[in-house]
Amino acid sequence: MKVAILGFGTVGSSVARILCDLKPAGIELTQVLNRGVARKRVDWTPPGTHWTEDFEQVLRSDADVIVELVGGLEPAGTWVRRALEAGKSAVTGNKKLIAEHGVELDRLARANGAHLLYGAAVAGGIPVIPGLRQGLAGDRITRIEGILNGTCNYILSRMEAGAAFSEVLCDAQSLGYAEANPSEDVDGYDARAKLVILSRIALRAGLDVKSVFCRSITQVDAVDLVYARDLGCTIRQIAKAELHPDGVSAMVGPMLVPLRSPLAWSRGTENMVLVSGQYGGDVVFSGHGAGGHPTAVAVVSDLISLAHGSRPVDLPSRATPVSGEFELRHYIRFIVKDAPGIVAEIAGALASEKINIDALFQRPGYDKADLPFVVTVEPCAASSLRRALDRIGSAAWLAQPPLDMPMLGE
Amino acid sequence: MKVAILGFGTVGSSVARILCDLKPAGIELTQVLNRGVARKRVDWTPPGTHWTEDFEQVLRSDADVIVELVGGLEPAGTWVRRALEAGKSAVTGNKKLIAEHGVELDRLARANGAHLLYGAAVAGGIPVIPGLRQGLAGDRITRIEGILNGTCNYILSRMEAGAAFSEVLCDAQSLGYAEANPSEDVDGYDARAKLVILSRIALRAGLDVKSVFCRSITQVDAVDLVYARDLGCTIRQIAKAELHPDGVSAMVGPMLVPLRSPLAWSRGTENMVLVSGQYGGDVVFSGHGAGGHPTAVAVVSDLISLAHGSRPVDLPSRATPVSGEFELRHYIRFIVKDAPGIVAEIAGALASEKINIDALFQRPGYDKADLPFVVTVEPCAASSLRRALDRIGSAAWLAQPPLDMPMLGE
Repeated sequence: MKVAILGFGTVGSSVARILCDLKPAGIELTQVLNRGVARKRVDWTPPGTHWTEDFEQVLRSDADVIVELVGGLEPAGTWVRRALEAGKSAVTGNKKLIAEHGVELDRLARANGAHLLYGAAVAGGIPVIPGLRQGLAGDRITRIEGILNGTCNYILSRMEAGAAFSEVLCDAQSLGYAEANPSEDVDGYDARAKLVILSRIALRAGLDVKSVFCRSITQVDAVDLVYARDLGCTIRQIAKAELHPDGVSAMVGPMLVPLRSPLAWSRGTENMVLVSGQYGGDVVFSGHGAGGHPTAVAVVSDLISLAHGSRPVDLPSRATPVSGEFELRHYIRFIVKDAPGIVAEIAGALASEKINIDALFQRPGYDKADLPFVVTVEPCAASSLRRALDRIGSAAWLAQPPLDMPMLGE
Repeated sequence: MKVAILGFGTVGSSVARILCDLKPAGIELTQVLNRGVARKRVDWTPPGTHWTEDFEQVLRSDADVIVELVGGLEPAGTWVRRALEAGKSAVTGNKKLIAEHGVELDRLARANGAHLLYGAAVAGGIPVIPGLRQGLAGDRITRIEGILNGTCNYILSRMEAGAAFSEVLCDAQSLGYAEANPSEDVDGYDARAKLVILSRIALRAGLDVKSVFCRSITQVDAVDLVYARDLGCTIRQIAKAELHPDGVSAMVGPMLVPLRSPLAWSRGTENMVLVSGQYGGDVVFSGHGAGGHPTAVAVVSDLISLAHGSRPVDLPSRATPVSGEFELRHYIRFIVKDAPGIVAEIAGALASEKINIDALFQRPGYDKADLPFVVTVEPCAASSLRRALDRIGSAAWLAQPPLDMPMLGE
């Protein structure tokens, strides 16, 4: 099986390195494509490796499989489509492409007797996609909770230890964990694409990517991690999807996670996926979700599967309506200019939506003009809570808009 | 694809139940075999299901796949062999059979154009085998550490909370977690069979089952869990295998696990597998390793793979010598009739094997005639430690033989 790697960056060169080290039976690296390929060229690939900048050359070559690692929707999408149409199989780690066009590309692969594998698109080195497809196809998965973005997990687990958001973000950028523009990570779009892919495979639900609600972790303040700890919790960026008779609830954003939950164990850039099945109960996968080598392991594993003639189990999904509604406990943090009647006003707004207050926490030692306190409420629909908070709206005593976060159970 | 279930106990009836509920495309339950089948017969399987006590009938039938869930080496082994020889594929959860004869049976399947799948043989509902085969084939796995026996984990996690071994064992038996004769579980033979299967798939190392050293958890005393806690650890039955240039080190037995290690997170009957790869680093799988439904999920997933024409990646293994040698820190617990010179004698025995003492712990409040204390030593080979302890041998001051346990790192 002749393999062409498109994109010789961190992951692409790791794939080549592992292929050269492990020499898996029946797999031969024959082509490498990259822009400005001259400066990318290395001397340790097999002697016959053809280096090129021209996709047409790859397409005309005898490569059986393309490994697409350029990322983004274009030209990656066109390249994968044209390769599949030419009867070549494709392996990709492109979560954005698979989240938005995976169903169409799967269909195209089938129609052309080719195969499309994307184990590297979610949680890199953790075999979540093969585990779900091959190992949990016999269950009815009803819920996914995942830590799918290593950058956010690095930031929040450092903040848990007392660091400030801006400082940690700088560190993450200088360590190469976060982009100069960190929006894809911190605002949840990266995790959302992965959640959409997992929902398709595990819940058999095709979700429209842009309909999945994202909340940024930038709104999380150091004080939230202090209050979370008081509540026996920590804060993680969670991607959550749940199957209901009439659709799927899905959301990405910062949530309170009990310290006893597996989701709280993830440290640094680790990823974790927890799926709950009707028959098998909870299964947890964790490990290194990103980085050149772990992601390359997923790519090489997909190549080995193809070389062994192992075909992925093709689980049909159907387009499914998605809402951001979860019936969960919530944490609401206010920062106020202290004045009489604030709690009464909040309680009234919540009561008008029939939301029960669970507890009220106010730590001593803060400035009265910038006073944080926290209200937790019993399980309620996210939309009712949103309406209640809208009623408080722009009250004069609010020093900044309140932040509400769902609280997950153990 | 017509399916015959052999063995209609807890797992077999769960498999039938899930097949009836989920109705996976292309899978039809046509036969059920059990001894005294009349009393096993249920009314909710598909109308045409044929119930029988006679394996010859199954073999002559048009069933494409047998699901072997009778367990043990015989007649299960003969039935699987004869089915494969007849060109029928086989799905089994029989760890003993696959540990001892898996290589031969895999070969037999290939020779007859049939397939043998056994995702249910290790860690039931956790997709470890598919995860390793499909998702981590592209790594070089060098180490496996697993909690592979739910009964032992239930016992040790209850003991961690203060209960006594004998009491917990009784509870485990009345809850159906442990057999009347618990030796397979507590002495490590069950976990050993699973470790041998995982070593074959992950390390590509064929180990002789009986050559893998097992130590019973029955030697663990309540006091060990107290000292373990002082050391920032807990105790778990761990199945561990490590690849070296000249073979594999493997062992099953109670070990000290740091509280910060994922292995300490497992509670109750949970299973957990941690594999370490040269490229992808550590990956953790956890969930319900046993029980009717979780095990049945693995069986049904294997059936779905077969029905979809998905073939397992066939990773060749080679027969590999195995030793019980690990270069690890060790915990050694003595129970002595207190007398002068004991520590000097122990220190001398350890020094004679060039083993460095790390620390010595002695909690107050114990009877001087039955006094527990603990020595931890720096990393040393298990065989040196064994020789050192043999030197102390049957010293008059020993109230009972010392217990040594490896201490795992974080």
